[in-house]
Amino acid sequence: MTKRTSKDIRNQSRFALLRGLYSLRTATRQELTAATGLSFATISNIVGELIDVGVLVEAGREDSGGGRPVTRLKISPERGALVGIDIAETYVHVDIYDLALGVIGQAESEPAIDENEPSALVRHVAGVLDQAVADAGISRDRLLRVGISLPGQVDPQRGVSVFAPNWDWHEVHIQSLLSEALGLPVDVDNPLRAIAIAELWFGAGRLVNNVATVNLGTGVGTGLAIDGDLVRGSSNTAGEWGHTTLVYNGRLCRCGRRGCVEAYLGVPGLQATMAEINAAHDLLTGDRQREFVADVAKGLADDDPDCKELIEVTARYFAAALGNLVNFINPDHVSILGWTARLLGAELLEVTDKYLPNEMLPSARAAVRVSLSSVVGNSVTLGMATFALEGFLEQVGLPSRGASTRASFGNTSSLAAGA
Amino acid sequence: MTKRTSKDIRNQSRFALLRGLYSLRTATRQELTAATGLSFATISNIVGELIDVGVLVEAGREDSGGGRPVTRLKISPERGALVGIDIAETYVHVDIYDLALGVIGQAESEPAIDENEPSALVRHVAGVLDQAVADAGISRDRLLRVGISLPGQVDPQRGVSVFAPNWDWHEVHIQSLLSEALGLPVDVDNPLRAIAIAELWFGAGRLVNNVATVNLGTGVGTGLAIDGDLVRGSSNTAGEWGHTTLVYNGRLCRCGRRGCVEAYLGVPGLQATMAEINAAHDLLTGDRQREFVADVAKGLADDDPDCKELIEVTARYFAAALGNLVNFINPDHVSILGWTARLLGAELLEVTDKYLPNEMLPSARAAVRVSLSSVVGNSVTLGMATFALEGFLEQVGLPSRGASTRASFGNTSSLAAGA
Repeated sequence: MTKRTSKDIRNQSRFALLRGLYSLRTATRQELTAATGLSFATISNIVGELIDVGVLVEAGREDSGGGRPVTRLKISPERGALVGIDIAETYVHVDIYDLALGVIGQAESEPAIDENEPSALVRHVAGVLDQAVADAGISRDRLLRVGISLPGQVDPQRGVSVFAPNWDWHEVHIQSLLSEALGLPVDVDNPLRAIAIAELWFGAGRLVNNVATVNLGTGVGTGLAIDGDLVRGSSNTAGEWGHTTLVYNGRLCRCGRRGCVEAYLGVPGLQATMAEINAAHDLLTGDRQREFVADVAKGLADDDPDCKELIEVTARYFAAALGNLVNFINPDHVSILGWTARLLGAELLEVTDKYLPNEMLPSARAAVRVSLSSVVGNSVTLGMATFALEGFLEQVGLPSRGASTRASFGNTSSLAAGA
Repeated sequence: MTKRTSKDIRNQSRFALLRGLYSLRTATRQELTAATGLSFATISNIVGELIDVGVLVEAGREDSGGGRPVTRLKISPERGALVGIDIAETYVHVDIYDLALGVIGQAESEPAIDENEPSALVRHVAGVLDQAVADAGISRDRLLRVGISLPGQVDPQRGVSVFAPNWDWHEVHIQSLLSEALGLPVDVDNPLRAIAIAELWFGAGRLVNNVATVNLGTGVGTGLAIDGDLVRGSSNTAGEWGHTTLVYNGRLCRCGRRGCVEAYLGVPGLQATMAEINAAHDLLTGDRQREFVADVAKGLADDDPDCKELIEVTARYFAAALGNLVNFINPDHVSILGWTARLLGAELLEVTDKYLPNEMLPSARAAVRVSLSSVVGNSVTLGMATFALEGFLEQVGLPSRGASTRASFGNTSSLAAGA
């Protein structure tokens, strides 16, 4: 049964305060009390702790209408920098964040195909990080901690890539390899967890507590937050909506099943649909995914009828797949992001909106909003920087691991599943 | 953002203790401390409160190996009775429970088709309750509170049937009608919420915290518990897995969509599949659903080839639909129940097990167990009696509403979604 200790509750309270402060940007203790529902005493204690470790600073004082002036607080951007790294199947993206989680530098590169060996990939990542630090123009000793997202099944507690099918990795102790190569403490997780925490803290989650974040790229998947808590599932792989059947006995998916959502909404799925519409279309001559998506966007701007048909057919698949998600989870908000969404999202969502009402139960439909994500920048690196912040607070003596997430897997927190 | 107050935490702790005690049947304060992870002081305080209101009693004293004898505690079966009522589309079932949640009486009846009017249905329910009380052989004044499950969208806070498509109900204030007719305090909710809380407290949830409970009957749906908390969703309709697309452009579902899981796994779906296998089969002559399912069970026992083919085809649909659920939610356990499962579950699951491994991602497959539910008796009435217990504790001055469930809808708890 669920175990909750006073330590967990303190950690939950600290993250409620930080989530509130990131949302409000600056706040008084009174405003944080109102925003979190915590007691003023609890807020004051946590604020004191965070000031002690340099995470919170005064942003000014203001008249309280008679009594003592009231202190306005903010996250200290000067305290140091956090790093968020998105290691995807086709690129490595690094963002450097100040502690207020604003981007101060970035770099991106495509690893060559022969860099799928852990040691080679780690060296590659170290090189991209050096470029990003140079871009930020800061000294390397300003870096506090690094959060790194990896595809596949990741165990954040053990720091292990349990299984990464794209690289054929099994039980790779990637966290220690990365930490050694970068000379910094490292947290690892799956990108669906990262986009969920980013959306919860910086996107739709600032207003509502049940949020599904849909990522459209080479693969597709969903980050889930329910009742304000990140959903990890039993083995940190919750949210694999991309591998739910949409078309029974349909297209073969790379996961081995047939008819998965990803086989229709992932970029190779879009290419397969285009091949069904017009196998001779120019767009299909290259095999590089980003160019294909960019070319479709260009085709839409030029009124290419095949590109329009691609969006039409894909929108019907997308509406049915989103309907499944909404009927099953009954979220307040569905946020769409990912690089396909950045290039095609507005057009795709406009057509999808036509079909979406028919795909949802009335009660679920009435409760939900579907939109492009309002998170600014890269949700994967932002989410990983948020996890790195969590790790940093633990590092400076404020035990916090898992408190923002109530993880039930790979987690020392006694919130973990247990008998 | 999430708001948690010390009152909520106290309520969560109380329900963790009760959930532990229902699981252990009897326990010492020390055992409850170990089982819940709460402090001994918290356990002692809550035990004191529950003894004061007569819910807990001593079950004996035992040697503690030197010091003072240790008191063993149990839920008092004598404190009074709770009622769980399952108003389904085709029947009304009433179970009377003692406070230890053992069944002490029951009754069931099929309402005539003209009893879909709220007032007529309420009179009908009152009649079935009277039969159940007579069956229990107790005085009616022993009844403490009634939990009633209703199909469709239910708002438990307002006590309203927001929308029940089967009866064409919209915004029916059913809780007050029922409470008046029965002369007792009443809680209402949706059956998917009831089966989820029953599974969490009395089934797989005794061992693990991420549980999906799949109900197979006329309709099909799922009750979800994630990280030990009931999932309600934004408008208390989470879990409508029955209305997720399995077959794109497939059979018309009664919800208006095409190809929903329910159109293949609900009893009318089984009948449609049988019609595809052999439209002239004897089983299809009647139109009563329970007889059909019972006849299929009999046909299987008699090695009827069409019945075997029905199970074979249905198992493939079921495996794909369960694979979707497992990949999306990554649960520890999937429990199958419902009246189709009672009659056909063992045979269906045996064939489904053949196909299931291919329908799950390796990481999710390794983490999950799929089995028939271990909950004894009727999960819907048991879950509703659990909600009634919650209501009763509030009634006697231990505010608790929503604490067992962290509901974000229709709930006075400040755990509700908020800005």
